[in-house]
Amino acid sequence: MIVEVVAVGTELLLGQIVNSNASFIGAALAEQGHDCHYQQVVGDNLARVTESLATAMARADAVIVTGGIGPRQTDVTREAVSASAGRGMRFAHEHDAELKDWWRNRGREMPESNLKQAEYPDGAAMMANPRGTAPGLVLDHAGTLIFCVPGVPAEMEYLVATEVLPRLRQRSGDESALVSRILRTWGRSESAIAESLDDLYQSSTNPTVAFLASGGEIKVRITAKAETGPAASGLIQPVEREVRGRLGSSVYGADDETLEAVLAGRLAARGWPVGIAESMTGGLVSARLTELPDSSSHFKGGLVPYASHLKGDLLGVSDTGKVVNSETAREMAISIRDLVDADVGVSITGSAGPEPLEQPPGTMFIGIATPEAVRVRELRMVGDRERVRIYGATSALHIARLAIAGVWWGD
Amino acid sequence: MIVEVVAVGTELLLGQIVNSNASFIGAALAEQGHDCHYQQVVGDNLARVTESLATAMARADAVIVTGGIGPRQTDVTREAVSASAGRGMRFAHEHDAELKDWWRNRGREMPESNLKQAEYPDGAAMMANPRGTAPGLVLDHAGTLIFCVPGVPAEMEYLVATEVLPRLRQRSGDESALVSRILRTWGRSESAIAESLDDLYQSSTNPTVAFLASGGEIKVRITAKAETGPAASGLIQPVEREVRGRLGSSVYGADDETLEAVLAGRLAARGWPVGIAESMTGGLVSARLTELPDSSSHFKGGLVPYASHLKGDLLGVSDTGKVVNSETAREMAISIRDLVDADVGVSITGSAGPEPLEQPPGTMFIGIATPEAVRVRELRMVGDRERVRIYGATSALHIARLAIAGVWWGD
Repeated sequence: MIVEVVAVGTELLLGQIVNSNASFIGAALAEQGHDCHYQQVVGDNLARVTESLATAMARADAVIVTGGIGPRQTDVTREAVSASAGRGMRFAHEHDAELKDWWRNRGREMPESNLKQAEYPDGAAMMANPRGTAPGLVLDHAGTLIFCVPGVPAEMEYLVATEVLPRLRQRSGDESALVSRILRTWGRSESAIAESLDDLYQSSTNPTVAFLASGGEIKVRITAKAETGPAASGLIQPVEREVRGRLGSSVYGADDETLEAVLAGRLAARGWPVGIAESMTGGLVSARLTELPDSSSHFKGGLVPYASHLKGDLLGVSDTGKVVNSETAREMAISIRDLVDADVGVSITGSAGPEPLEQPPGTMFIGIATPEAVRVRELRMVGDRERVRIYGATSALHIARLAIAGVWWGD
Repeated sequence: MIVEVVAVGTELLLGQIVNSNASFIGAALAEQGHDCHYQQVVGDNLARVTESLATAMARADAVIVTGGIGPRQTDVTREAVSASAGRGMRFAHEHDAELKDWWRNRGREMPESNLKQAEYPDGAAMMANPRGTAPGLVLDHAGTLIFCVPGVPAEMEYLVATEVLPRLRQRSGDESALVSRILRTWGRSESAIAESLDDLYQSSTNPTVAFLASGGEIKVRITAKAETGPAASGLIQPVEREVRGRLGSSVYGADDETLEAVLAGRLAARGWPVGIAESMTGGLVSARLTELPDSSSHFKGGLVPYASHLKGDLLGVSDTGKVVNSETAREMAISIRDLVDADVGVSITGSAGPEPLEQPPGTMFIGIATPEAVRVRELRMVGDRERVRIYGATSALHIARLAIAGVWWGD
């Protein structure tokens, strides 16, 4: 189906917020196999929202409108749907009661203006929104489906997943199940991954194989369609096996797993808490390892010996005259492990730029000391200071993940 | 003037990237006093880009098109401008030579496909783009200005600032200068700031006063229009003084100054390098203090004593049975200063959640030890773990900034 996205909100036009709702919906539609030819953004103005909706209705099979369905005077989406479809407005007394309950349960009186949320264009149905007060709306107008969802991302995402996508699938007459699997990778470039999966990418129809890149991470998405969910998963399995075989250890996790969570799980499984000594990354590695709620079970502590002499004073590095080298990384990894009473020590020392520090910007040495071995890996990256630091931190996490699993580079 | 933004790129429709270009341009237009009624996003399809441009040209005084002007087969913006304006295509031989030079200077042959970038719709002028290979285009078609700029954010931002905005001002016939001043604040809520500036906000016409909120930081923008830049700055001055007077020490900087840079400048000015001991924030404070290129001049080092016993082992905290309290923060601040041989010690210990740690989630103690005094401040924040950690780190930087200037809370 051809689906168009219309985002309503003057704050979007003024650049006060970024239209991340449109990209969320765009990605969800693409994954479900729908086509999206246009997105529109329009301010809180009845005539202009009405015009935008009329344009979208004329060229799409379905329209998803985000925003403008709250209780404020400036929320005009309901009226605009009425106007563009040439339908009157109705009042949902039963929803009025629900709304009053919602407010009462929070110990407050409902403001009169909220009654607006009980209005709907003639023929529309409400879509329950347990995450907020504004219910979604769906209207089948002359064969075109019009969905109105809130602009608040959490509420929009909930309604798109639970109401909009299932209804689009039903309307498309496609009763089949669509299942996706995302393999997450680090350490290979997008072009290297694309090259090694080129035949799968080119020839794939079911399952399809696609790439998504963000923040240096490349995700490989495998999507299959079948009569049932388990059947679709069954189609994915051999392709996933093939992709994993080709990409090897660069695949660190699947679906929503983060690298931090995967590493934490590995550390916990071996009963090996970790300590971090980082200079170039200035605390980023420790910060990422403590993002998870139960971090203290796998992370003991970290040190940022930024001034060179601290590498000697606190970590016993033998030569602090030159600190961007393999030996310094090795000594830092071993010492931090002892200093914080951990089983694994991870270190990173390097030149983040923009000025060279002993080595050209982007050069770094990552050291790992586990109960099984001590090794150092040298990496050279391109990019500005921010990128070198962030990618460096991710690389340290990734290399630690491999080392803990007994996978050492060069093996 | 009424200006419309059209973003071209299938990757935007697929949700692979967020349309941050549109919000950048939207904010720039608003600041310059232009109106923007619509934004559009359209894929790399000649017929559809042509339709979108025709729609925009019919309802706006100027159209800014981002993306689709590169050398790829799928880059159709040039052709779409030709088609929507009913003009032929020309070839710029002199630009062809420039392009070849650009590639030669980088030691490479120009791919044949890049010749496409030397094509332009009849009547259009090129706008030099020193940040990339694709020049921008500007066409005055029947009184409507059409600008084409690259989709790469850095190139787009450069051309919008140096070419598009000046031409829009010239076209609007407004010869006056527009000057903005942004005051950056931390530590007060948006509603508290809005309340204390309400009369300025309501009554302001020239200068105007506006609020922008992002990541917990509230920015106050003062914009004035006058015959000359200095005259506009002169109008801003008394308002800035008034705003600073009302907001007091919560104003930490102006315009592009970051809190990290302001704190670094203060530390450097007093010749006081800093050391950080942080548990709840897990390294975030150190990471932010090392974002700047010359960090080693103001930052000595940091410690993340996440396991409670490390607060005793490494920092000599006397009672490690309970660590989320004022005394622990005080001892950590004093000890880290000594441990890394700094003049200022900053500490943070707290409960990030989701589970309580001695105290309800969001409770934190920030300690500061300077050569002048040692103090601890207790803060209670709402929000999830991520927010508590990030806002906690920013609060530590802000409190350190004040303490170094001799401004202590409760004074």
